[in-house]
Amino acid sequence: MKEYEPNLVLATKSFNVVGTRPIRHDGADKVTGAAKYGADFNPARLLHGSVLRSPHAHARILRIDTAAAEALEGVRAVVTAKDFTPNADALDSRVDLGESTASLKFLRDNVLASDKALYKGHAVAAVAAASLSAAEEAVSLIEVEYEALPAVLTAPEASEPGASLLHDALKTEELGKRDGRVSNVSKRFRHSRGDVEEGFAAADVVIEREFYTKTVHQGYIEPHAAVAFWNQDGRLTIWCSTQGTFVVRDTVSEMLKTPVSQIRVVPMEIGGGFGGKIPVYLEPLAALLSRKTGAPVKLVMTRKEVFEGTGPTPGSYIRLKMGATKEGKIVAGEARLDYEAGAYPGSPVDAGAQCLFACYDIPNVDIEGTDVVVNKPKTAAYRAPGATNAAFAAETIIDELAERLGMGSMEFRLKNAAREGSRRADGPAHRSMGMVEVMEAMMEHPHWNAPLESPNQGRGAAVGFWFNIGLPSSCTISVTKDGRVNLVEGNPDIGGTRASIAMQAAEVLGLRAEDVNPTVVDTDLIGFTALTAGSRTTFATGWAAYEAAQDVKRQMIGRAAEIWDVDPETVDLKDGKFASSVDPELSIDFKDLAARLNETGGPIMGRATIDPKGVGGSAAGCIVDVSVDPETNKVDVLRVTSFQDAGKAVHPSYVEGQMQGGTVQGIGWGLNEEYFYNDSGEMTNGTFLDYRIPTSLDLPMIDTVIVEVANPGHPYGVRGVGEASIIPPPAALANAIYHAAGVRMNQLPMNPGAILEARWGNGEG
Amino acid sequence: MKEYEPNLVLATKSFNVVGTRPIRHDGADKVTGAAKYGADFNPARLLHGSVLRSPHAHARILRIDTAAAEALEGVRAVVTAKDFTPNADALDSRVDLGESTASLKFLRDNVLASDKALYKGHAVAAVAAASLSAAEEAVSLIEVEYEALPAVLTAPEASEPGASLLHDALKTEELGKRDGRVSNVSKRFRHSRGDVEEGFAAADVVIEREFYTKTVHQGYIEPHAAVAFWNQDGRLTIWCSTQGTFVVRDTVSEMLKTPVSQIRVVPMEIGGGFGGKIPVYLEPLAALLSRKTGAPVKLVMTRKEVFEGTGPTPGSYIRLKMGATKEGKIVAGEARLDYEAGAYPGSPVDAGAQCLFACYDIPNVDIEGTDVVVNKPKTAAYRAPGATNAAFAAETIIDELAERLGMGSMEFRLKNAAREGSRRADGPAHRSMGMVEVMEAMMEHPHWNAPLESPNQGRGAAVGFWFNIGLPSSCTISVTKDGRVNLVEGNPDIGGTRASIAMQAAEVLGLRAEDVNPTVVDTDLIGFTALTAGSRTTFATGWAAYEAAQDVKRQMIGRAAEIWDVDPETVDLKDGKFASSVDPELSIDFKDLAARLNETGGPIMGRATIDPKGVGGSAAGCIVDVSVDPETNKVDVLRVTSFQDAGKAVHPSYVEGQMQGGTVQGIGWGLNEEYFYNDSGEMTNGTFLDYRIPTSLDLPMIDTVIVEVANPGHPYGVRGVGEASIIPPPAALANAIYHAAGVRMNQLPMNPGAILEARWGNGEG
Repeated sequence: MKEYEPNLVLATKSFNVVGTRPIRHDGADKVTGAAKYGADFNPARLLHGSVLRSPHAHARILRIDTAAAEALEGVRAVVTAKDFTPNADALDSRVDLGESTASLKFLRDNVLASDKALYKGHAVAAVAAASLSAAEEAVSLIEVEYEALPAVLTAPEASEPGASLLHDALKTEELGKRDGRVSNVSKRFRHSRGDVEEGFAAADVVIEREFYTKTVHQGYIEPHAAVAFWNQDGRLTIWCSTQGTFVVRDTVSEMLKTPVSQIRVVPMEIGGGFGGKIPVYLEPLAALLSRKTGAPVKLVMTRKEVFEGTGPTPGSYIRLKMGATKEGKIVAGEARLDYEAGAYPGSPVDAGAQCLFACYDIPNVDIEGTDVVVNKPKTAAYRAPGATNAAFAAETIIDELAERLGMGSMEFRLKNAAREGSRRADGPAHRSMGMVEVMEAMMEHPHWNAPLESPNQGRGAAVGFWFNIGLPSSCTISVTKDGRVNLVEGNPDIGGTRASIAMQAAEVLGLRAEDVNPTVVDTDLIGFTALTAGSRTTFATGWAAYEAAQDVKRQMIGRAAEIWDVDPETVDLKDGKFASSVDPELSIDFKDLAARLNETGGPIMGRATIDPKGVGGSAAGCIVDVSVDPETNKVDVLRVTSFQDAGKAVHPSYVEGQMQGGTVQGIGWGLNEEYFYNDSGEMTNGTFLDYRIPTSLDLPMIDTVIVEVANPGHPYGVRGVGEASIIPPPAALANAIYHAAGVRMNQLPMNPGAILEARWGNGEG
Repeated sequence: MKEYEPNLVLATKSFNVVGTRPIRHDGADKVTGAAKYGADFNPARLLHGSVLRSPHAHARILRIDTAAAEALEGVRAVVTAKDFTPNADALDSRVDLGESTASLKFLRDNVLASDKALYKGHAVAAVAAASLSAAEEAVSLIEVEYEALPAVLTAPEASEPGASLLHDALKTEELGKRDGRVSNVSKRFRHSRGDVEEGFAAADVVIEREFYTKTVHQGYIEPHAAVAFWNQDGRLTIWCSTQGTFVVRDTVSEMLKTPVSQIRVVPMEIGGGFGGKIPVYLEPLAALLSRKTGAPVKLVMTRKEVFEGTGPTPGSYIRLKMGATKEGKIVAGEARLDYEAGAYPGSPVDAGAQCLFACYDIPNVDIEGTDVVVNKPKTAAYRAPGATNAAFAAETIIDELAERLGMGSMEFRLKNAAREGSRRADGPAHRSMGMVEVMEAMMEHPHWNAPLESPNQGRGAAVGFWFNIGLPSSCTISVTKDGRVNLVEGNPDIGGTRASIAMQAAEVLGLRAEDVNPTVVDTDLIGFTALTAGSRTTFATGWAAYEAAQDVKRQMIGRAAEIWDVDPETVDLKDGKFASSVDPELSIDFKDLAARLNETGGPIMGRATIDPKGVGGSAAGCIVDVSVDPETNKVDVLRVTSFQDAGKAVHPSYVEGQMQGGTVQGIGWGLNEEYFYNDSGEMTNGTFLDYRIPTSLDLPMIDTVIVEVANPGHPYGVRGVGEASIIPPPAALANAIYHAAGVRMNQLPMNPGAILEARWGNGEG
């Protein structure tokens, strides 16, 4: 067994800046309170808004009377769905959301309900007034006549024949065609490879189980907030807390039928997103209210509104069957995944299906999935969306299979691990990936090999895989005369990406990270840049920074060559010095050349706009020790180690932060978190007191092991690291609970009640 | 005589956008009050500052006691000159100010007096407090012990032997060497060409006169204002109303010994500058106060502080002698120019000397000039700085020479007009310029040829020349998917340059001006961009926009070629369409290609950083009719026509605006404006009630004639137009007054008192 540093770095090529841990550029602003978040923008003449939300989980809206609200002193405008420009074809008009597309009608209806309210908390109208209290009072004066309808809250329930229908015209899309019958099942798909029947026939052990997970929220600390000002020349400016300024720009453009070039979206600092701050909620409302009033309008959600009115990740039903030979080879997998889309189509069931078996090389697979609308908020992305639900199912069956086969669970995993070239269930082959290396790191880690202390303790492991995404990014870099550079990019910085992007530019230019001054700018000031999500920012915008730095380097080489009157081909930048091979005298420091730019031809800026291919998927693993109180069934987390393939960790501290954050969220999802609905479809725990997110008192320090299997598709080998670490913890916890308490868990969260239920199912209790 | 349109355009090549009059991009913001000017920025935790100013025009500072001020409730910090990092070599350390350099010690001392107060209003200390009233009260509690010294207020007075010396160590710089004796004459220079003695010997008429002009202020409506926040990570951000964000950055960097890359200067909208908002006054004070307090600090000047504490244009003494043959050829010119620098060296006497004879081709010239420090505020640039004083002298003598020769004054001017290749007094030859064309336009204009109505009316003409400047600029352009572009540049927009820059990009890309969305950004977000001054912005940054647009065009051509799989050389952009010569089918609108960029390789940005040569000088002329009341000697301006060579007027309305604005300022300077000093060196008219700037009630509509002699040094033939129009009016008025009242004026302003004095000198009275 090897000795490990707390942070194991397996790979490889070493750099000057990439891989170090400089102080983040936005640190001072954030620790001193100077950073401005979504709600911190207060322009002159600001009006305050409030939103009326449906008290029903499912209701037809018969009439909205805003007269009394409009008559209230201080009220400046009221908007309802009628204020959207009508668009007959809206249902079929698709809007690009960066990672996906959505129907314009559904997008609009989710922002302001038109004919029906589809979940408790669904926005129905909004008010702008001189004060927040006037706006809130006006909201209470809006009269809405509802016809309450039965609510359906889970995928199986909503899929039943005769279930209450959310949409009158939603036909099931099958194989890409929307020609099925009208139903709550918005989509049905299948991925097959090999022959599962043959596979199961060859298996010595087959396990089939059903799994249930609940709706959980990303739980970002900062509620949604937006200010909009629609100027009299038609230019609309929106200041908001978002993961994607260009997504907001493009979505609002479609929803309000206003050209993108008329809309400027200014990113405020963002207090967490995790996927939940990609969709727009308040922005179009603030814009409509500003257009009506001619003044800037601010809307800020309460925590209750965040829970009830924004997009959590779906609850799901999964039926999974896997078979293996006694030699320990997995030969077949069959699954059914039904994910709740929330009120409008678009759960991450597809991603869940793609990830379900992605950690392994399985010859025969068959997956059927459905996306089902239910009377809950429309789901949004949440860190590796869809994959955690799937891994909960797959990795507990893996553990059980290994047990049945009498193998170590990690040995069993490693034997079946997916590698470069392994085919995924949905067809494509894996590119280079570090699944094997992550598993090996787990098996060799002291945690995996340490003894447990007591009979009520158990250790579990699990792995997960996430694709990551690419998408376009832009970057410019200007050289300052003191030999540093200003970098401009368009990705709201959630997890330290100012630093991780700046560092890649510094590496090219032979500068220190501190010599690069990154600024995140609005949509008017930089070329198109896709959202901060999909673990893409350090990968893609970092690459744009790399290219912009190359552009600077080329020009500076050209300038040096001009000054020296030599061929630029003879000049290179090395160790912070430009030098020509023509003559050893011809050498100048970056700083000294920077000081001479203006007088030798003018300043220098570099620019890059890229749409990078070569995205590298990320493998993650988790080992967790728990104790299960035999009387209360409360689970205490004793020790956690998170493993992840970062490709190359640009700023290891922030990679570790992502891993720890993802792991904590996975633990919260695994043990405590859920939207607790009553029978009428109302969430009854919509505060952070009742919706239980783990705090530092609930958890031990989470150890991290960064594995580095360089991504050949990125100049520095970078893979995205923001998501994969959330995938394994619920399954690892379930396995640990089994080994501690002897019960196989098949539902999340695994709170004392669920464990008690499992004990009953086991014949205990 | 030709018929003229109100706006004569002589030239030439026609464009789609350049030369049209679109609505300005910042119009809505500015007319609705949404635009944010210097004082409109109010961040959280803002402290308010106030400045203690010297009551003496000249005094040694013996002691400053800030204890009582610091003890006042609400006061957070007091700064004096001691708060600058000491720098022994500061006197010899030169700081780049964009157009010029200055000694660091003098720069600092002008911002906060150290050993001496050198003018009434000189800043001595500054306070930051929780409220403005507390800051003002604290200022009144600062005790300063002064030793009052005799003040010298004009160049001749200050140059006399034995005059009270402002600086103990200031030695006269002669021929570039500072080795003269200690004196108030900071610099003495000479420009000679030919042989003036021979020249005057050949002259049939020689006239020699002395001229006196007073200190006048630019009179921008918006007072200076700055907010600074020095963050705990060492990054300093300054929000201010300035003509040059990079000048502020670089000057503050030197003064506070902080690297430029640590300083971000954010341009607020600017309510006028005219050269006066290039130097820094409040910015370093706000920065020092912020460093001490850890909070943002705002300083805003009162009008009195603007008059007394910022840089006006100098009063001057000029002795000028010119000789001409009876054939009307000017053969010699000799001059002495003594300009007041204010308290620290650096009047525009050099520029005055270079412009004095620049309108004419004179074989023999000899000019001596001095820059003299006096106990007045340090002068700053003011529209064609130095040239108006000089033209007042030259153009009145020209008028008198013509009269003595029995020639028409315009015929006389035209006969001697400078052309391309004519040598200037200081050596270099004129490039292409429109002096002849301006004179011809004047002579052919109905105004010049219209009859006068009464015996007390007179008509005068004058011309002027100004160099304009180039200097570096940067620009980026991003394509939006709806087929428009976002343009980013770094020049505060004083006179409509957002439009004039955007239009040049639109011209390249076949777009409308409205399709280009220009934003003026701070120093962190764009490459180095020199100040908005010297009539350079439309010329230089417009050119940068042209080049950035070419960069966009090249990339879009490349993209189209890639899509079509043809050689990019076969593709061109014409009339808003990309088309390949390979096949007439291969054609795509700009808009349609823009919509496809993300999916065909990624977004597109263009960038340009330039240091343009080929600056084109601008010729201007003015015809003015006045009536002089024979009893009160009040001058009424009856009709004014302004002429100027714009090279190519990018946005003719803004060229006309510059011409009208410059002309009004020239008229104010000519007739009313002056710093009125009492014997102790105190300005006694430091309000807009007493300092008389012409209002619309004082003036007729000012007609404009744009002459276009394309500048071969710019892609669209542009010359700068911001300055030259201020030069001719005082001389034209003097000539008009002569023709109305029979008196030759030799001092500015030509108010009733001055005319009465001239009548007395004439033997009238």
